[in-house]
Amino acid sequence: MKDKPIIQEDTIVAPATAPGIAAISVIRLSGKETFSIAQKLFSIRNLSDKPSHTLHFGTIISKGRVLDEVVLGLFKSPHSYTGEDVIEISCHGSPVVTEQIVSAAIEEGARLAKPGEFTRRAFLNGKLDLTQAEAVADLIASQSEAARRTAVGHLRGRVSQELTKLREQLIQFSALIELELDFSQEDVTFADRGQLYAMVDTAIKDVTDLTDSFRLGNAIKNGVDVAIIGKPNAGKSTLLNALLNEDRAIVSEIAGTTRDTIEEILYIHHVLFRIVDTAGIREQVEGIIEEKGVERSLQKMKQADIVLYLFDISESEKEVQIEIHKLSAQHIRFIPVGNKTDLLRSGQINDRFAGIPEALFISAKEQTHIQELKQRIYDSVISGDVSPEDTIITNTRHMEALQKILQSLCDIRDGMDKGIPGDLLALDIRHCLHYIGEITGEVTNKDVLDYVFSKFCIGK
Amino acid sequence: MKDKPIIQEDTIVAPATAPGIAAISVIRLSGKETFSIAQKLFSIRNLSDKPSHTLHFGTIISKGRVLDEVVLGLFKSPHSYTGEDVIEISCHGSPVVTEQIVSAAIEEGARLAKPGEFTRRAFLNGKLDLTQAEAVADLIASQSEAARRTAVGHLRGRVSQELTKLREQLIQFSALIELELDFSQEDVTFADRGQLYAMVDTAIKDVTDLTDSFRLGNAIKNGVDVAIIGKPNAGKSTLLNALLNEDRAIVSEIAGTTRDTIEEILYIHHVLFRIVDTAGIREQVEGIIEEKGVERSLQKMKQADIVLYLFDISESEKEVQIEIHKLSAQHIRFIPVGNKTDLLRSGQINDRFAGIPEALFISAKEQTHIQELKQRIYDSVISGDVSPEDTIITNTRHMEALQKILQSLCDIRDGMDKGIPGDLLALDIRHCLHYIGEITGEVTNKDVLDYVFSKFCIGK
Repeated sequence: MKDKPIIQEDTIVAPATAPGIAAISVIRLSGKETFSIAQKLFSIRNLSDKPSHTLHFGTIISKGRVLDEVVLGLFKSPHSYTGEDVIEISCHGSPVVTEQIVSAAIEEGARLAKPGEFTRRAFLNGKLDLTQAEAVADLIASQSEAARRTAVGHLRGRVSQELTKLREQLIQFSALIELELDFSQEDVTFADRGQLYAMVDTAIKDVTDLTDSFRLGNAIKNGVDVAIIGKPNAGKSTLLNALLNEDRAIVSEIAGTTRDTIEEILYIHHVLFRIVDTAGIREQVEGIIEEKGVERSLQKMKQADIVLYLFDISESEKEVQIEIHKLSAQHIRFIPVGNKTDLLRSGQINDRFAGIPEALFISAKEQTHIQELKQRIYDSVISGDVSPEDTIITNTRHMEALQKILQSLCDIRDGMDKGIPGDLLALDIRHCLHYIGEITGEVTNKDVLDYVFSKFCIGK
Repeated sequence: MKDKPIIQEDTIVAPATAPGIAAISVIRLSGKETFSIAQKLFSIRNLSDKPSHTLHFGTIISKGRVLDEVVLGLFKSPHSYTGEDVIEISCHGSPVVTEQIVSAAIEEGARLAKPGEFTRRAFLNGKLDLTQAEAVADLIASQSEAARRTAVGHLRGRVSQELTKLREQLIQFSALIELELDFSQEDVTFADRGQLYAMVDTAIKDVTDLTDSFRLGNAIKNGVDVAIIGKPNAGKSTLLNALLNEDRAIVSEIAGTTRDTIEEILYIHHVLFRIVDTAGIREQVEGIIEEKGVERSLQKMKQADIVLYLFDISESEKEVQIEIHKLSAQHIRFIPVGNKTDLLRSGQINDRFAGIPEALFISAKEQTHIQELKQRIYDSVISGDVSPEDTIITNTRHMEALQKILQSLCDIRDGMDKGIPGDLLALDIRHCLHYIGEITGEVTNKDVLDYVFSKFCIGK
């Protein structure tokens, strides 16, 4: 893929599975000396004579000590994740065993891998383009089904495919312009300007679709922070329970993951919403909330992507409107939610809050209109035009390059409007192609790679 | 191994690696339908035609959704961990991906494995005896190099070998007795009683060595709890730092494991010592310690295996002896440690504390005699006669059976002293052989197996 493939002289080693006590743990070696290092530790002779993609049971012995009984998986260059010789050692899943085997490999000449170094080698050896390499990190970090699905799509080259389409449009456009340039002496306009406009417009539309998807992409990738605010008697805890009632985080149950932050996880249409469990905050806040209203909790929750402002429908419309005014004044995205509809007739509600047509009325206690609320929460961050089935941009680096591409395309269109010469248009097209190359990694530099791979975990 | 090998009709699935975000995660399937279930999910055709011990790259697809790009490792019965058909799926290390693949396998007919169910099947299929199966759990849970080494020894059949030796002695003894019985009509004593005595004595000695090793084995397997007590000004924190100075827990550093309890880990000769970091306790205690002396902290730390009673050598010998008396009265195992030798000449120290010859004098601040203290801590729990190179019993279940064996052997010896008939001696020998079979799992029942495998993690 590169002009000169970068040959990695050193052999890297790292645990590839999560630390902790488990049935097995996998340690991965990659590089020139993979087989010779493994051979020094492994009980079975002539490892390098074994075929690629085979499994071998034996013992790891270092300095005369049997470290463990293990299974070795052999992957010979170029048919491996990194493209180099790779060996995966499945040992018993104790941190002590894992550490001993990694240390033994290091003693025999391997080096502890840096974060993302395996994938970096895969990229350098043309196994993946840069968007796919980034998708590996996203996939590993995915916390919801939507995030997993998007990342797998990217891993399988979905972004690259979109960009290939765009590149082809640009090259075709460029070819027409070049044709015109060739005959420029004769002052003939070969390229059908109408066709050129159509092409640029299509490209602008396609890139705009991608940049528009970023808000959804970001929500899918990173999850959405939701804060519930409101007076102590508004029913926040009841609402939290009502929201969580059905969608209890399946992932954390099965996987046994623990979270450090105090938050509850809610999935709406497979997208992860973090409802800040303000147990701590609430208590602190609620002591003084009677005097200060919701102001202080607002301040605490300003970093949320969306705020649910919960009020008791026995409050006066005026009271509620004052709070809504405060929220609006602070540019906070919020949904006004009137609670306790079980206590009033619906006619009464509509009469009382006629001035707040955007409010949704629910009964947290009786769980009425909770689904509608979830949809409102989802819609508030996921713009209607983008479907999760479309190619979705989730990566800030891609977004930045796409914005530059979009700018260049607009420059081309402007240039055509102003009738600028074809060679200048061709220059803008080259800019576009350059930015596309930045995304896929065809055009790159060490800083970009360092940035991309620093976000990986060790062992990937 | 069993009269009738137990055929498992259902196919089990579980994650085999620790939960969390990592490069890869491994999911394991075992049972009759392993290949047909995997085939329904995997992109490559004719899985069951592929040779055993091979690796295959492809995609996992469920209900038309690509779940992940994975590598499948195939192990065909009987050449697998469980003895059944086994497939290991290496997917990207996200809890969401792992959960989706496990769920997909369950939808296709697999069942989530119970704790230890893979190893239980390995045992039932004669791949491991019961001591080896138990060693798998111990190895996975090992928190120190000593625990790892002992568990690997057991996994490789070390306990079973000792028991085989013992069994052979008993069978030989039994043969001699039987010979005597055959000729009992003639009232002839064939078996050389001297030889019989020698045999029983050897057996008693061997079993005693094993039971004696249990204290060390328990310390190796479970670690040793050490509490440092003493007045606030005695220098406990400084001592803690001095002890930890060199041996900072390498395992927790490399593996990134987190511990729930507040404790510091110290390795002495590869054995794990947990020094209860009484940060919380200390502060609570020290507020009132001036009045109540060490009594309250004693109470808190009574559960420790060994207590370091730290005193400032500027205290009077009498004061110190009062505390030592209290500790002794409560049957607490402790080492008296005089701190701050940097402040007195050694002659003075000996003069002042002549009545406490068992005390060790250190300077935590200047780190003098810290190595000696570590050795004293180690020796206090590890009895001198047992070397870590010997076969060490770490398992309470084995210990209980060994005690019964020892009792039977003593009964035999008593019986011989009293001249009881050979057929009664033979009965005691059969008891011994029964208890040996209990340890290795040749004699067993569902309750014992349930007990043994309940201590495993899911996926092993």
